[in-house]
Amino acid sequence: MSKRNLYLNTKPVETALAEYMEKLQNCTLPQNEIISVAESLGRVTAKAVFAKCCSPLFNAAAMDGIAVKVAATKGASEAQPVILEEGSDYIEVDTGDPVHLPYDAVIMAEDLMPVDKEHVKIIQPVPVWQHVRPIGEDIVEGEMLVPGGHVMRPVDMGAVIAGGNSHIEVFPKPKVAIIPTGTEIIKSGDDITDGSIIDSNSYMFSGMVSEKGGVPKVYSIVEDDYEKIKKTVEDALAENDIVIVNAGSSAGREDYTVHILRELGEVVVHGVAIKPGKPVILAIAGGKPVIGLPGYPVSAYIDFENFVIPVMNLFSGLQTLKRNAVKATLSKRLVSSLKHREYVRVRVGKVEDKFVATPLARGAGAAMSLVKADGFCVVPQDSEGFEAGEEVEIELYKPIDELQNTLVSIGSHDLILDVIADKINLSSTHVGSMGGLMALKRGETTIAPTHLLDMETGEYNISYIKNLFPDKKMALIKGVNRIQGIMVKKDNPLKIKGVKDLVNCRYVNRQKGAGTRVLLDYKLKLEGIDPAQIDGYDKEATTHMAVAALVAREDIDAGMGIESAARTMGLDFVVVGPEEYDFAIEAKSLEMPEVKAFIEVLKSEEFHKKLEEMGGYGWDNAGEVVIIE
Amino acid sequence: MSKRNLYLNTKPVETALAEYMEKLQNCTLPQNEIISVAESLGRVTAKAVFAKCCSPLFNAAAMDGIAVKVAATKGASEAQPVILEEGSDYIEVDTGDPVHLPYDAVIMAEDLMPVDKEHVKIIQPVPVWQHVRPIGEDIVEGEMLVPGGHVMRPVDMGAVIAGGNSHIEVFPKPKVAIIPTGTEIIKSGDDITDGSIIDSNSYMFSGMVSEKGGVPKVYSIVEDDYEKIKKTVEDALAENDIVIVNAGSSAGREDYTVHILRELGEVVVHGVAIKPGKPVILAIAGGKPVIGLPGYPVSAYIDFENFVIPVMNLFSGLQTLKRNAVKATLSKRLVSSLKHREYVRVRVGKVEDKFVATPLARGAGAAMSLVKADGFCVVPQDSEGFEAGEEVEIELYKPIDELQNTLVSIGSHDLILDVIADKINLSSTHVGSMGGLMALKRGETTIAPTHLLDMETGEYNISYIKNLFPDKKMALIKGVNRIQGIMVKKDNPLKIKGVKDLVNCRYVNRQKGAGTRVLLDYKLKLEGIDPAQIDGYDKEATTHMAVAALVAREDIDAGMGIESAARTMGLDFVVVGPEEYDFAIEAKSLEMPEVKAFIEVLKSEEFHKKLEEMGGYGWDNAGEVVIIE
Repeated sequence: MSKRNLYLNTKPVETALAEYMEKLQNCTLPQNEIISVAESLGRVTAKAVFAKCCSPLFNAAAMDGIAVKVAATKGASEAQPVILEEGSDYIEVDTGDPVHLPYDAVIMAEDLMPVDKEHVKIIQPVPVWQHVRPIGEDIVEGEMLVPGGHVMRPVDMGAVIAGGNSHIEVFPKPKVAIIPTGTEIIKSGDDITDGSIIDSNSYMFSGMVSEKGGVPKVYSIVEDDYEKIKKTVEDALAENDIVIVNAGSSAGREDYTVHILRELGEVVVHGVAIKPGKPVILAIAGGKPVIGLPGYPVSAYIDFENFVIPVMNLFSGLQTLKRNAVKATLSKRLVSSLKHREYVRVRVGKVEDKFVATPLARGAGAAMSLVKADGFCVVPQDSEGFEAGEEVEIELYKPIDELQNTLVSIGSHDLILDVIADKINLSSTHVGSMGGLMALKRGETTIAPTHLLDMETGEYNISYIKNLFPDKKMALIKGVNRIQGIMVKKDNPLKIKGVKDLVNCRYVNRQKGAGTRVLLDYKLKLEGIDPAQIDGYDKEATTHMAVAALVAREDIDAGMGIESAARTMGLDFVVVGPEEYDFAIEAKSLEMPEVKAFIEVLKSEEFHKKLEEMGGYGWDNAGEVVIIE
Repeated sequence: MSKRNLYLNTKPVETALAEYMEKLQNCTLPQNEIISVAESLGRVTAKAVFAKCCSPLFNAAAMDGIAVKVAATKGASEAQPVILEEGSDYIEVDTGDPVHLPYDAVIMAEDLMPVDKEHVKIIQPVPVWQHVRPIGEDIVEGEMLVPGGHVMRPVDMGAVIAGGNSHIEVFPKPKVAIIPTGTEIIKSGDDITDGSIIDSNSYMFSGMVSEKGGVPKVYSIVEDDYEKIKKTVEDALAENDIVIVNAGSSAGREDYTVHILRELGEVVVHGVAIKPGKPVILAIAGGKPVIGLPGYPVSAYIDFENFVIPVMNLFSGLQTLKRNAVKATLSKRLVSSLKHREYVRVRVGKVEDKFVATPLARGAGAAMSLVKADGFCVVPQDSEGFEAGEEVEIELYKPIDELQNTLVSIGSHDLILDVIADKINLSSTHVGSMGGLMALKRGETTIAPTHLLDMETGEYNISYIKNLFPDKKMALIKGVNRIQGIMVKKDNPLKIKGVKDLVNCRYVNRQKGAGTRVLLDYKLKLEGIDPAQIDGYDKEATTHMAVAALVAREDIDAGMGIESAARTMGLDFVVVGPEEYDFAIEAKSLEMPEVKAFIEVLKSEEFHKKLEEMGGYGWDNAGEVVIIE
């Protein structure tokens, strides 16, 4: 066996960050900048900005009308109106015009009765300074307009200009180098060969740097070569304030980063008790921070949030703020280790009057869990996790308002859920039909997509709902008819004709509780086949598309699923039979606006057209509601 | 009297917007763009983006170690270890390497016992697919990555790239023209003359356009000339998607905008039942939206939020989302008219365990109310307002987290509050000393800055607190000694020597309940002077700086206030006497971290140095805590 970096000490997150930030106190920070206020949106003030003049700059009319001498209006009443003369008693003014002595009040045009070109009549006396904005009413010379360390917003730009400042001093935007490394890494758009991985992290980092007020610079991909990586890090250090190396931070045979950083400077931390994200490197070279991030996108993201952002904020003057959080009920048990703090991405939706959080795929490679997440739940290092039904705090990626309008769906997977999510806010989690019904029972979802065959009656879904919810008024929103079948490689080389032929091939199954697996078991039973006879009965994939991808690309000959998935992946499809894919729901939830919008989509022509394109669907009853008594 | 546009119908906000949006359905929208994912941060997808390939692209090792044949590991145990041979039983793999048949599982390096260069020992059998990430585990070809109408975030950029897309189709960024008009308007940095107003709105709009995904273009200021404004609007229509004209939307003598827009196209709405912001114009010219915004910054801001943003979103594909909201207790009565919907800017802070909202200056010209606001409270058109103590909904400009760390101060004003706000999150509202103590009593503030002289004992603050809070354990955080006096014009032309000389001058007073006004009343009483003898006793300004600005720039000879304000405005200062400016607080609040940080600032050398620069302060006891039993 080759030698590996067996391994890194793992420190608690706070300790690691504190040690690193302490060391970074000695870094030289780049100079502040003086910039035009017109270009200051999102920039951070280096010091407080004070008004150089008042606003308004003079006593000003607050209304369109006339500026009058208060003395001339005394005694005016309906019975005894007063006639005012232009030039001696008043002058005309528009809003914003100066009002100087001898004039000391303004009367609105609406309150005047014109007499002739040079005279107006009034029926009320006016108090001193009526409708006059005194000098400095809004901004007084010398007043602080915005404090130091403040992120400039449009309203601040307006006030700073109104207060007589055309330029302000701001912290510089930190320049952040992003160095992708790895012989297997290819650039987006390049040809894909076996073993290649498209560099997606650099784009994600680049976006995160911009979002946090920095200037990203992505370097060309460097192969796993000690000298080449070292040279690129040196170049990057010369041109930037902060350097990120991705990846090579772990303990693989070609993970050079830590050795290079030891040669170029000091490795302060290697390995943190965080999951995902353990193999992070926090180093200093040439007086500048260099951070080695792991290759898995979720690990890299979580380390970026925890370590790169605080370092950027040291340069940019931004505050490290906690996200908005909500309390939510956990829909699944969450087991974690005492060895690390774990960041679990979750979907959040409102079910009845409470928020429900459903953990997403927890793998470090699950980039889609970041895309789908509404927020995350932190399991502390000293905790073994949380139970289903426990109330946990969720830090949110999205505005709370958006979550409140999101329809929660937990259950069986079908491609039509993607089509629907393109039209309404739908938070959909795939746990199989039975898993969805159980979630509905626990009050964790509003709808549960299900396609469960009653082996005795041959009817779909209804008997399962009746059995599971004996005391509740339930309903079924009819979805689609779809064809289940066996997906096989193009041209069906093994000539598979039905379920009985599966004993002669390499199969991939769906997870327990999935309707498709129930259907397989039912068919096997009818044929009198023992599941143990099927090579791969224990291999599980969790969606139709995942099964299709395995059959299409790997050493798998067959898997059961729906026709649209087979089509999408260019597979042949052996029909097993039609089934009904519907949505279980409590009858009282039918009144929710999100549910109504959902039903509208199911009934829409646009949706039916899309189903036709995808193939393998029937939609005769789509959107119909069946009340189950 | 000249002719005016007497006046605009005022429609409810929703009606006005709906009519306008309806008309805009016929506008031609600019073409979508195909852009590189690298440049897609913050852009809005024009349609759903689907994966063109799987991720991972192949069955991949999820750990560093070896890829093995599962069959070769059968029966391994501590008692009967199995020796595996490289090349036949296993090959070495790093995380991410492909795992192809005949290998069908991975064993982590940590679980291997090296035997020699080509052999390793294991003591456990492994299941199929252990530590293997199956093809498509994260992303399956054909899967929807992000829906249409989605704002691209860094994590989306990563996933879209990983799913094999290098470019995506997005909505165009709307080009928005901003045309400042008005003969009195000058550009930031230009010389100021009587009556001039610095154009600050264009900068605010420009920031708002950028923030909402548009491309702003600010035109040169156009004087109040019908033909010139018309020409500029025509030019702007040729080059942009949306045109904003500011101002001239009202009914002043030179408010040409509405006439020009009637000539160039159709004015759909002129005047909306909204406050501030009534004189807005919603028009269409050359098939494009043209919006006339009022000149007052707050009116303009509120109209921008309510009308320009929805129109921009029609072009940009962004959703119009509600802000995060909190329930807060109103600290002051809020009276509003049935004639309009009113937007009231408020400060929000946490006092004990509830949020408290304090309305800010409500004038349309109060640009600083936008800067200081933590959010706003909407008084509906059919409501006459809310009572103090009522719970209202506040839509927030800031993250809730930031508000929770903000110390709330309501009471007397002093410039040192600005200095402190530069160091900690301080929400300070100026209502005078007595107003602050009353707010403290109602539980609406944590600290109340106060400088109230007990006319009998000559002692400051303590007796007032004892009387107002007979049942509570209170404390006083000592602030500064400061010199109160009479601010007069440079070189004191009227030779004012003391309070008795105020009868011979034009005075400006502070509002009722202000400690400075209490002091004046006390001194007048000692001198036997009737307030009615003082010209301007009824003219009120609400801060020391506002008084100073009036004395410095206007037809006012004197006002009472503190030395630092006089210095800042270059005024002479006639000493009346020293006073104690302290902070009343409930004793139990002394434990709050925000209060501790506040006391630290008061005691800091940096703070004392700043006071020395400002002049007129003593700080011997600053930060001392006096418990009042």
